[in-house]
This record gives sequence, C-alpha cells and structure tokens, in this order.
Amino acid sequence: MTSEYIKSEFRKLQLHISDALEKIDGLALFNEDAWTREEGGGGFTRTISNGNILEKGGVAFSAVEGPVSETMTKQLGMEGNDFFASGVSIVLHPFHPRHPIIHMNVRYFELDNGTYWFGGGIDLTPHYINKEAAKLFHLSLKKLCDSYHNEFYTKFKPWADTYFHLPHRGESRGIGGIFFDHLDEKFGIEKSKIFEFCIELGKLFPILYGQQIDFTKLSQATEAELAWQASRRSRYVEFNLLHDRGTKFGIYSGGRTESILMSMPPMAKWDYNVQPSLNSEEAKSLELLKEVVDWLI
Amino acid sequence: MTSEYIKSEFRKLQLHISDALEKIDGLALFNEDAWTREEGGGGFTRTISNGNILEKGGVAFSAVEGPVSETMTKQLGMEGNDFFASGVSIVLHPFHPRHPIIHMNVRYFELDNGTYWFGGGIDLTPHYINKEAAKLFHLSLKKLCDSYHNEFYTKFKPWADTYFHLPHRGESRGIGGIFFDHLDEKFGIEKSKIFEFCIELGKLFPILYGQQIDFTKLSQATEAELAWQASRRSRYVEFNLLHDRGTKFGIYSGGRTESILMSMPPMAKWDYNVQPSLNSEEAKSLELLKEVVDWLI
Repeated sequence: MTSEYIKSEFRKLQLHISDALEKIDGLALFNEDAWTREEGGGGFTRTISNGNILEKGGVAFSAVEGPVSETMTKQLGMEGNDFFASGVSIVLHPFHPRHPIIHMNVRYFELDNGTYWFGGGIDLTPHYINKEAAKLFHLSLKKLCDSYHNEFYTKFKPWADTYFHLPHRGESRGIGGIFFDHLDEKFGIEKSKIFEFCIELGKLFPILYGQQIDFTKLSQATEAELAWQASRRSRYVEFNLLHDRGTKFGIYSGGRTESILMSMPPMAKWDYNVQPSLNSEEAKSLELLKEVVDWLI
Repeated sequence: MTSEYIKSEFRKLQLHISDALEKIDGLALFNEDAWTREEGGGGFTRTISNGNILEKGGVAFSAVEGPVSETMTKQLGMEGNDFFASGVSIVLHPFHPRHPIIHMNVRYFELDNGTYWFGGGIDLTPHYINKEAAKLFHLSLKKLCDSYHNEFYTKFKPWADTYFHLPHRGESRGIGGIFFDHLDEKFGIEKSKIFEFCIELGKLFPILYGQQIDFTKLSQATEAELAWQASRRSRYVEFNLLHDRGTKFGIYSGGRTESILMSMPPMAKWDYNVQPSLNSEEAKSLELLKEVVDWLI
C-alpha cells in the first residue's frame, strides 16, 4: 500500500463525504480551495456555509511531505529525515441549537525510516444531550469497531473521553466517540486493515450525522437555546485552541491557518461566569459533561 | 518593601482603575467576585458589562502564594520552594467598532530564595487604526517610561511588538504599547522604583483609555464595521488562547478559569478566509498590523 494510494483514497473520501453532506443539508454546496505548501504537498479545503442545516462547516483533505522539522521531531519524540502525512478532517456547526456539532478526522503518517501510523477520531458535541441519540451514535461506532478488532471500541472510547476533555472547565467537549493515535500492526491488525477501518469510519460519518439530524424534531429555536449554543460554542473554541493537539501542532509548526481553523464555530460568546439555572435542561446537559458516561447502557 | 505592601497597593490600584472606568463609561458598574485558592491566596475579579461604552470588561486583582508546582518550575526555568505572586490585569471590549480594545497587566513575583521580578504590559487593539490616536497612546507611554529609565521605552516598545504578535496570522494584535518581564534591579533601577513605575502605569491606564474614547467622534456603527469588529475579536481570542503566555500558564497550571478568561470578547466570529476588500479602510488597518511601526513619527 503506497502513500500515493492512501492519498488518493483520502481525497476520494473527502469528495464522498462532502457530496453526502450536501444531500443532508439540501441547500448549500461546498466551495473548494486548493493550496500548496512550499516544502511539499498541499491540500483541498472544502467549506460550506449558510445552508439549510449547516451554518458553517469544512471537510479538509491534505497530503503533505518534506523534511522533518525541529518542531515535528520534538512533537513526535523521534527522528527522521523526511515524512509524508495525509488525512481528512471535518467539523460541522449546525444552525439549530438542537442539532449537534460533529468532528471527525482520519490521518496517516509515515517517516522515511519505515515507521508509520494511523490516527483518527470522531466525536459529537450536542448543545443539549439526548441520551437516546448518544446511544445511537455510540452503538454504530461500536459496531464498526467490533468488525475490525474486538478491542477497538473498548480502547478507543475511553481514549476519546480523555482526549476530548477540557481540564480547565472540568467538562467533556460532548458525548465523545472514539479516538486513536499511533495505531499500527503492533495492535494485532495489519496495515491495510487499519486503513480500511479509517475509510469505513469516514464513510460512516455522513450516515451518523444524518441520523442525528433526523433524530430531532425541530421547533423554532428560542432565545434561551441560542444563548446556550453561543456559550457552548465558546467551549469548542477553548478546546481547539488550548487543548487539541492537532490544532496546536498545526498552528505552531506553521501549517495553513485557514484550513486548521475552519473548525472554529461561526460565532461564539463569552460572558463572565455563566451558570445555567438550577434543574434547567441546560444544567442537566452540563451535568452529563462532568462525568464519564457509558452511553450504550 | 514587603509582599504584603505590594499586595495592598495592587488591590488599591484595582479599585482606583475600576472607579475611573465607571466614570468613563457613565452607566455600568463593576461587580466584584471574590475567590480563594486552595493552596493559598485568592483574588477579586471585577467585571463590567452592558455599559454605555463598555460591552464587556474586567479588572482583576490576585495575590496567590504556596509551594512551587512542577508546571511552575518548568515555566520559570528555576527552582524554589514557595512563591508569592500578585498583580492587576485588565481587558476592556467596547461596544463600538471605532473604539479600541485595551489590555493592561502589572505583576510581581517572588520566590523564597530571594529572587523577585516585575512584569507587565499595556497594548491597544483598535479595530480601525487611527495613526494620530496611536501616536497619542505611544507618546504618553514614552513619557512615563522616560521618567523612570531612559531605556524603558526603547526596550519595552519592541518587546510589545514581539509579544503581542500572532505568528500564525503574520499580524500584530494591534498597535502594541509596552511589555516587560523579569524586570529587577539588574536593569539599573531599584526595586521600589520599578514598583512605583508599575503603579504609575496602572494609574495612567484609565487616562489613556479615556483619551482614546474621547478621540473618536462616533456615528451609529454600520453593518460592515460590526462585521469587521467581530472578525477582529476572533483574532483576540486566537492570540489569548494560542500565544499569550499568561493565559496559557494560568490555564495549564490550574488557575481560576473564569478570572483568566475574562479577557475573552463578548462575541467573536469566524468565517472561512475573510479578506477585506481592496483599498478599504479595513484593508488599510490590516496592512498596518503586518508591519512593525514606529507610531511616534
């Protein structure tokens, strides 16, 4: 399996996902922005905005290569001369506070010394948590995981709980999902199978998001719902800029800012010390973010 | 000069500044939130919102002490058993896009091994840059600096240019100001004089902000001005969460989140790849943020 093949499959995955999301949205279409990187490679950043369902979103593909920089060596904890990295990253911010934010990322990395790994993750950030919808999401992820390795879900679900966490708030970003990194054949699964798992996770993505959208019968959003959404979106910003390793690595190593920060919400609000009122639906959602939950039960 | 004295003077400074800002605003009053820190010390966070001029702002005082943590040792690059730190921090976000955002911070740090230093800074972030107003701001800072040490302004102005910079955007946060850190008697000025300088800088703060407010004759903000303000505010968020050492140190070392993040704007917007139109006033302001400017000329 050559890096050229991985790259072309990831690009196909990006197009597949954006086509499927356009159908789910039913109004807006993606714009594609091509970019190149001086040291080698580039990408296509596809963004969507002002749709029927989606207020702002992006499905980014990149495939970059070149000499390993100092920042990279430090971050990787290992040395190499040249690297190749490719992946697909998605963040969607819907208009309606009753629709969840969603993120997914699958990526491949290799060094010229023969080392390689896959990484990825998907996580759901409902502004209002519906336990049934959360269960649906996790059940589908578990089913996919189980069809590849009987330890994927049991390892990757807690990994997501740990990763998508805001220690400075004592909160999870949302209801989690799965997260994995540095995954290679040492996990007891061959390289081509891991890659296939990444592609299948990518193909599952629009199905999962469609399910979440279909799950909620919407009314006109209230002022209170919109205010809560705006304050939860500020947490999304905080997670991405303070804690997300991918974002920080990209920004500090001189990655393409607009592609990295396409994950930002269209708008976010910060008020001092916002607390939802006692026993409100907002307070109940917040409570659930303060614990580790097994959503399958 | 005891740490108890420094603490009480900083607290007085906080009250002086918030009183003066209430007069400038003419409508809103500060709310005070007292907090304590488990390991020792605490603070008073004073916030203001929905004023006449100020949409959201904070003037925070803290005085904390206790054993030096591992994170702290790493950040400081030196060891110590116990520390004491006190300071005043301010960020103001005005309603009107023609009024600038402003930040100031003065702080004192000491270790039980006798090491101490002062740090601080002030910088102005106009959404629209007016060169005359920028000159006024820098002239006053230079005058204060010169009255304490003839190298303060020449050293601290470029330090601010370097510090208040967003490398991932190739932009400055605004028109800068002054920044200094690890300042002690080795600079050729005695400890009590440095402290006096910090207090005088603090007292100058509301005068400087008042000057900026008075400088601009306002009309009703246009849609275009408000959109530009919202997008510049997102840069303010990016600077604080990605690059500001104080914010990052505070968050990662388990500081009080709401007090640290009182610096966040009330609202910020992110669109993909926003570019101001050619030769617009927005484009001209942005151009100025891409160079290092001597505002005194």
